[in-house]
Amino acid sequence: MKLNAIGEFGFIERLKPMFSHLVGEQQMGIGDDCAVIPSDDGFDWLVTTDLLMEGVHFLREAIPPQHLGIKSMAVNFSDIAAMGGVPVGSFLSIAIPADVEVEYLDELTKGMYAISEQYGVPLMGGDTSKSLKHLAINVCVLGKCPKGTARLRSMAQVNDVICTTGPLGDSAGGLQVLLNHIPIAGDAATLVDRHHLPIPRINEGRLLASFDGVHAMMDISDGIASDLPHILRASRCGAVVDLDKLPVSSVLERAALQHGWSAEELAASGGEDYELLCTIKPDAFESISHAFANAFGRPLMPIGVIREGTASICWNRNGQAASLQGGGFAHF
Amino acid sequence: MKLNAIGEFGFIERLKPMFSHLVGEQQMGIGDDCAVIPSDDGFDWLVTTDLLMEGVHFLREAIPPQHLGIKSMAVNFSDIAAMGGVPVGSFLSIAIPADVEVEYLDELTKGMYAISEQYGVPLMGGDTSKSLKHLAINVCVLGKCPKGTARLRSMAQVNDVICTTGPLGDSAGGLQVLLNHIPIAGDAATLVDRHHLPIPRINEGRLLASFDGVHAMMDISDGIASDLPHILRASRCGAVVDLDKLPVSSVLERAALQHGWSAEELAASGGEDYELLCTIKPDAFESISHAFANAFGRPLMPIGVIREGTASICWNRNGQAASLQGGGFAHF
Repeated sequence: MKLNAIGEFGFIERLKPMFSHLVGEQQMGIGDDCAVIPSDDGFDWLVTTDLLMEGVHFLREAIPPQHLGIKSMAVNFSDIAAMGGVPVGSFLSIAIPADVEVEYLDELTKGMYAISEQYGVPLMGGDTSKSLKHLAINVCVLGKCPKGTARLRSMAQVNDVICTTGPLGDSAGGLQVLLNHIPIAGDAATLVDRHHLPIPRINEGRLLASFDGVHAMMDISDGIASDLPHILRASRCGAVVDLDKLPVSSVLERAALQHGWSAEELAASGGEDYELLCTIKPDAFESISHAFANAFGRPLMPIGVIREGTASICWNRNGQAASLQGGGFAHF
Repeated sequence: MKLNAIGEFGFIERLKPMFSHLVGEQQMGIGDDCAVIPSDDGFDWLVTTDLLMEGVHFLREAIPPQHLGIKSMAVNFSDIAAMGGVPVGSFLSIAIPADVEVEYLDELTKGMYAISEQYGVPLMGGDTSKSLKHLAINVCVLGKCPKGTARLRSMAQVNDVICTTGPLGDSAGGLQVLLNHIPIAGDAATLVDRHHLPIPRINEGRLLASFDGVHAMMDISDGIASDLPHILRASRCGAVVDLDKLPVSSVLERAALQHGWSAEELAASGGEDYELLCTIKPDAFESISHAFANAFGRPLMPIGVIREGTASICWNRNGQAASLQGGGFAHF
């Protein structure tokens, strides 16, 4: 049977039950942004890993190696942020084809260092090997959060306000710029930067996780059309999302107008924004939103509401049921 | 500059100083079998990761997928064993080319499960993606050991007895069988199994680490000619190794005779045996060796002695200085 017949999540669904009886009682294994391993010192350990393959996740000629280094760390830091934790250490496995030179690797590691230094996270180990053809970069990050405070996908409750920590679709816009060979200048350059240099929302995640009213949390790596259903399945509920409330940056709005894209579609279905998606108890929303704006100088963006029902999104536009063009990101 | 001008360890040597100031005071980063991250609950966390690339570390047509699954876990468990720890959880990143079918993955994960179940280690997370051409498998394992008991490469002391936990060269013999297309039956089949199915010496590592007299420890992944110098450099000392004392299995002896190999060279320079290499305080050697034999029904194998001097091995054969043919495994 071909793998695309079951897909990435089909493969994971085959793995998960095999190992579930080995997972300790207080531990959490496959199925969230990070695994959770409790310690007896007042903290829970968080572990996540992300593999970037040349030709699949990046084109070596399209992304500067420093940016690739930053991105390969940032996507993992983002998973830690999504649990409300802080990264503690990283591990790099890299398979290097013969045509990659030392100078390229120096730039790549310079990028890794830059973002690691910014958040105070040491690279603590890894593995290097050659590769016959494609560059492969796997980063694994350990993080921690105060005991019992990790925010899981399964924690959403009916009537929760669904929020994001920032605008959506910029990264997908950057990918459109690259795929369509649009000259990389002005707004197009800003969008490409948003695609290559995602910002892990570590401080945002910590602040949000400090409020009891913040329930489920995850990061938006595949687009909310794909990602929100993970929360809905894990929490056994549905959602209404208002397409007209999806936050879109003015840069993306201008670029969409200029190049004939649907900003709404990019915001709903485009991946790799790495903003956080969270669900907040309705009567706590205002005070949390206020604290968020105070801390970060920008608002928390409400985009919909958790409802009873099956694990799917009902899309609205201006109060009317609407359908969404396109879909989320497929890994196979 | 081409990467092979600096090699794997040259690349690591460029990385290590960049991040060293971010590593916490009690933590240990790049440079041993595992990183060490102290916890405040009486344990130290151990972290290791290994990347297996198709065409570099394995040939998809030569290793049954179940065996590949077992090996990909075993090599990481072995790193945990080398510190004297036990594995706690594993993380799998896998990039899958389009010609790999679901049935292949089912066999691969069956192998991963078999060895995980044997040692009670849950697979707790990971990442899956497609790959344009080659199968890439990265496993990261977390382990733990009682606080302050991790055995480092830097702990060897002058006059320590250098030991291994088992015979050397079998895995390299198995690789010779595969490379020379020798029919896989009888002794040849045993050697191929030793190449494909390394046994992580977890129980051996735990027992050894329970004795104060056991100083440095590591696992033998690249052959002692390559691996022992890591201990020598980290501990700032030299070593004398007796080639005639290298433990060689009767299976390898017979196969070497039959196929014209040098068993001594395979034992000294061949990689992937995954036995442990340790250095033991001379006056503690006898009692530790006795306890080892009692627990595992086979002796600890003394192969040489730590000496003052530069970080290189003086090879002896029957008490006379000797030279070693070949060399260790080179990653680039």
